Amino acid sequence: VRNPGFSGVEAAAKSVAAAVPPTPLLTFERNGKTVFAKAESLQPMGAFKLRGAWHRLTSMSDVERAKGVVAFSSGNHAQGVAWAAKRLGIAAAIVMPSDAPAAKLAGTRALGAEVVLYDRHGQSREKIAAALAEERGATLVPSFDDPWVVEGQGSAGLEASTQMAALGAGPPDLIVTPCGGGGLASGLALACPDAAVVVVEPDHWDDMGRSLRAGEIVEVAPDAPPTACDALMTRRVADLTFGILMDRGATGVSVSESEIESAMRFAFSTFQLVIEPGGAVALAAVLAGKVSITGETLVILSGGNVDPADYAAVLERGR
Amino acid sequence: VRNPGFSGVEAAAKSVAAAVPPTPLLTFERNGKTVFAKAESLQPMGAFKLRGAWHRLTSMSDVERAKGVVAFSSGNHAQGVAWAAKRLGIAAAIVMPSDAPAAKLAGTRALGAEVVLYDRHGQSREKIAAALAEERGATLVPSFDDPWVVEGQGSAGLEASTQMAALGAGPPDLIVTPCGGGGLASGLALACPDAAVVVVEPDHWDDMGRSLRAGEIVEVAPDAPPTACDALMTRRVADLTFGILMDRGATGVSVSESEIESAMRFAFSTFQLVIEPGGAVALAAVLAGKVSITGETLVILSGGNVDPADYAAVLERGR
Repeated sequence: VRNPGFSGVEAAAKSVAAAVPPTPLLTFERNGKTVFAKAESLQPMGAFKLRGAWHRLTSMSDVERAKGVVAFSSGNHAQGVAWAAKRLGIAAAIVMPSDAPAAKLAGTRALGAEVVLYDRHGQSREKIAAALAEERGATLVPSFDDPWVVEGQGSAGLEASTQMAALGAGPPDLIVTPCGGGGLASGLALACPDAAVVVVEPDHWDDMGRSLRAGEIVEVAPDAPPTACDALMTRRVADLTFGILMDRGATGVSVSESEIESAMRFAFSTFQLVIEPGGAVALAAVLAGKVSITGETLVILSGGNVDPADYAAVLERGR
Repeated sequence: VRNPGFSGVEAAAKSVAAAVPPTPLLTFERNGKTVFAKAESLQPMGAFKLRGAWHRLTSMSDVERAKGVVAFSSGNHAQGVAWAAKRLGIAAAIVMPSDAPAAKLAGTRALGAEVVLYDRHGQSREKIAAALAEERGATLVPSFDDPWVVEGQGSAGLEASTQMAALGAGPPDLIVTPCGGGGLASGLALACPDAAVVVVEPDHWDDMGRSLRAGEIVEVAPDAPPTACDALMTRRVADLTFGILMDRGATGVSVSESEIESAMRFAFSTFQLVIEPGGAVALAAVLAGKVSITGETLVILSGGNVDPADYAAVLERGR
């Protein structure tokens, strides 16, 4: 079992930098202080996910590459894996629910990936993906429970630190980040060992935050109400990501749907950026005053894939 | 009278690069070809305008700086001048219509500028601004009819060329750009002397395109219907900008309001970027097939300042 660490994040950052330009580091003012915001929504496919996928796939041997990769996701991770696989000439099979939006199925196929459909109500996508990988000898690329994926996502932290230095700022003292399964958050913790890390989740889906307080993994309650943050609806985090964040003394806060919408509108009017609900939670926590800004603060805007009608409704509700 | 040219654009590019990081150069596919899109909507204040303002203001002597600057605009140019003036510690007075949106007045004041109101129906903002500049000995910063402003806007072209080279592409063979008064378009023409330049305007407001075909300046018809492109509603271009584009053999095309809206939706779903109507016209021309893509093509996305309700309506109309 590989142990993810800083040197792996460094390697990932170098490899990702050779594939895509850095995403912009924007700034805004809060309580008289400058806060840095990393616009990962501007990555190809609209989210940070290609970082982990790229690091995982470029770390595969030629023999492994020839057998392809398998991933399960109906969202940003699928697109990230498909994008990386296409660029590297690796066959990718993505296990997606048969009732996924047509645009997402078409988008994944347009990237050259094979889409394997499953019935969301009767079948387990984990089992289907594992069986498929086993049958083909292909490499399974989990969306967060994987050392390379964690290191790859962490490259965003090194990239931001370099950009902050170029702007005359120090390295981040505080990183505020969206958290689903914890791949991005734990990667950032490895990338910036001197920074405090605050993970942000939607209300009722704050299982990482509660796990960190309990000192053991706590699942999302079965009756948790729905959230607009489809990218963050993970019911259970991984030992790997939880362990890294626990070791680092990370803490968690949660934000309401209305705080998330306010942050989306703030990103619209301040940055002219489309940020999806799950991508806006860390910004929401800062704007709502749920995180006290101390020292150099870095906020991750993790993705921008949102349905146009849903986005229009968010803007309308701000009037 | 200063004659704007390539060396001035080079100086502007160096000066702008020291003030703000490069805006992202994104790509999309069209007819199997990669097209480059320069996201100037991600500049501070949401538009390319700070380039010209910055170059103009940094070119002023200490004596001139002490007397301040005056500009007239209710839009992106005002914000660009106010932003540059604040950063340089120069007093700025911005002449704005008394019925301008409260958010724009507040935004300009928040940048530390003095707002001078005028009655849109009874007074000429040009005369008010000129009188004010005369009275104070201040420097007038026109929004396009100025050699420094033209050179400054052109810095976007040099910056994009450098980014294209870093991506392994050649310099642009074709530049497709929004055009109001022609400051940006003529600056790009100076920056990239080997590129074909196509200026894009909204239907009925295509005075630069018609002027280029007529070989002399033609004004917008008095009964031209309104357009959503508030940033491009210039009734008459300048001898300076027209002359540069005419010399270079630039051509023009115009796009419909519905083509512009489609381009705004394309930028939303493909780039997760908010682009305002006037900022989307060049993209609209490429997507509508009104410009044939030859060689390395660069499209400018010039700004992203749009009212949230108007933007929501554009997204809704795409369903």
